[in-house]
Amino acid sequence: MPIQQTMLEVIEDELKLQIARLDDPRTNQFHEMLTYHMGWTGAGAGPLATGKRIRPLLVLLTVASINSKNKDNANWLRAKPAAAAIELVHNFSLVHDDIQDNSDKRRGRPTVWSLWGEPMAINAGDALFVIANQAIVDLSKEYPADIVVKAAGILNNTCLDLTRGQFLDMSYEERTDLQLEDYWPMIGGKTSALLSACTQIGALLGGAEKAQQDTFKSFGFHLGQAFQVQDDVLGIWGDEALTGKSAASDLVEGKNSLPVLFALGKKGKFAERWNSGPITAKDVVETAAQLESEGARKFAEEMSEKETQKALMYLKEAKPEGEAGAAILELTNQLLKRRQ
Amino acid sequence: MPIQQTMLEVIEDELKLQIARLDDPRTNQFHEMLTYHMGWTGAGAGPLATGKRIRPLLVLLTVASINSKNKDNANWLRAKPAAAAIELVHNFSLVHDDIQDNSDKRRGRPTVWSLWGEPMAINAGDALFVIANQAIVDLSKEYPADIVVKAAGILNNTCLDLTRGQFLDMSYEERTDLQLEDYWPMIGGKTSALLSACTQIGALLGGAEKAQQDTFKSFGFHLGQAFQVQDDVLGIWGDEALTGKSAASDLVEGKNSLPVLFALGKKGKFAERWNSGPITAKDVVETAAQLESEGARKFAEEMSEKETQKALMYLKEAKPEGEAGAAILELTNQLLKRRQ
Repeated sequence: MPIQQTMLEVIEDELKLQIARLDDPRTNQFHEMLTYHMGWTGAGAGPLATGKRIRPLLVLLTVASINSKNKDNANWLRAKPAAAAIELVHNFSLVHDDIQDNSDKRRGRPTVWSLWGEPMAINAGDALFVIANQAIVDLSKEYPADIVVKAAGILNNTCLDLTRGQFLDMSYEERTDLQLEDYWPMIGGKTSALLSACTQIGALLGGAEKAQQDTFKSFGFHLGQAFQVQDDVLGIWGDEALTGKSAASDLVEGKNSLPVLFALGKKGKFAERWNSGPITAKDVVETAAQLESEGARKFAEEMSEKETQKALMYLKEAKPEGEAGAAILELTNQLLKRRQ
Repeated sequence: MPIQQTMLEVIEDELKLQIARLDDPRTNQFHEMLTYHMGWTGAGAGPLATGKRIRPLLVLLTVASINSKNKDNANWLRAKPAAAAIELVHNFSLVHDDIQDNSDKRRGRPTVWSLWGEPMAINAGDALFVIANQAIVDLSKEYPADIVVKAAGILNNTCLDLTRGQFLDMSYEERTDLQLEDYWPMIGGKTSALLSACTQIGALLGGAEKAQQDTFKSFGFHLGQAFQVQDDVLGIWGDEALTGKSAASDLVEGKNSLPVLFALGKKGKFAERWNSGPITAKDVVETAAQLESEGARKFAEEMSEKETQKALMYLKEAKPEGEAGAAILELTNQLLKRRQ
């Protein structure tokens, strides 16, 4: 079995074990909210509902790619609570995001708040976050305490970045003076911070020296940046069949993506249209064409390529080894060149 | 200056320092939401708005009360990030509770959600929780890593208890089969768990042996139980002048307090009235009298006394020393006998 497949099974088992903390007769329904959100129970449960578990996979692959010939370090299994912690943080933020954005669907299924109400969904998100922190502390069964404290520190700094990114994203909804420079701090917090935590914590737990940890961290960060920018391009100009989204829906949703902020900074026709009111489905093709004509698509594609090159450069410098190292490169290519 | 006063100043400074992580030009408004909630800024800022900081005070007093003649242990100052962490957890839960309960006032001022909206308030609560976790990790500047990991473990287990208690509280709103036994797990999670974490973490950081830590933990737990039960009695039969609440308002709010759950289990006239629809202000005196006639007040007062005695027994057994030890007893008496 390829190493990724083994890891994905270990991740799923560890996530179930962590969430089972709430599996008690009195809190059955509470436990059910979490297992439903994680994609294991309820209508539509299954692989499409769980998501791809890219973040925890990246943690374990990074651990396994360091000093792969050293038997002790090659044991990536003991890092599984950290992988679970990252995925739980990601899912905590999704549950709260869905309330904040008033989204009633997530991965094709009704969201937690739409099934159990907002108060319960706030609490369910809180619990996912608490369990993430408990999972990190579980590392102390297998790692020295000073490593656990470092991992917890990285995870918590990342979580504060997430709340910063979320704040910026929400505060942008009421602003009409946005420009390109407003994009990076938002996306750095919302997407790239968590991916950089995956590779940084993975390197720490794999026993990498500080310099190699930093290189892995930079790889994860730019992987996140490139992924997000590419997602932004696809969200406007992507083919539905390739992305699984309806074409150009980000314009209808009013999302402050990179192409949009680039064009708002230009204060041209697109900016005028954007600030005059919501884009409707029938305006989408024309508005996307206008955006492209102002250079927004070219700019975003260049930025995506630039971030991709940075990610690949740091990955090369990080020297991941063995089967896991090859799998990281494969995963990166999969994420960043998904149209190929 | 009495030790409590010094500690309260240290606590306030540490809380400000922790929350200053968000004090950045881009996240000014985000920082403001937190400083407003903590009672430092905005209309009505001041001592009435901050709350009493009982929990962090209990942490520091416990640290200082252990081995008070040992110079190293007497330095309670180094435990201040743990005190801040507990107060931040408490405040995170308040911000989310206010959204969940749709409460527009907290300590006489508009709640965070009523000023900035629910999406921002969810995120502000999340940030308070993240910063609590960062504060616990800050202990590593002064304590060995294994102690920090233990403190983080205690804090996170407590936070899961909080979400369990909150789940039960919310789920009870839709139930008509509640009885006495449903009370303790709810209140154990919502109130007592956090108070027991104060004294347990305090004992850990003060250098107490495991047995003394457990005794301090039990003290905090029963202090929480006694305090909550007393608060429930005052919420129904308390004089407004003594409690600062309008008389019997818990009945109007439909709160599943101990006297109510006791009487629901009896399935008598009160239960019939309770299950037939909301109690209005004009029914309050009569309903409270009915509740008392069914023995609910006597039962709750006995339970409060029983829990108070347990708390005092554990406190005696924990042998807190010196000025801090005396201050813990004083704080306990203040909390549990506030009508004296």
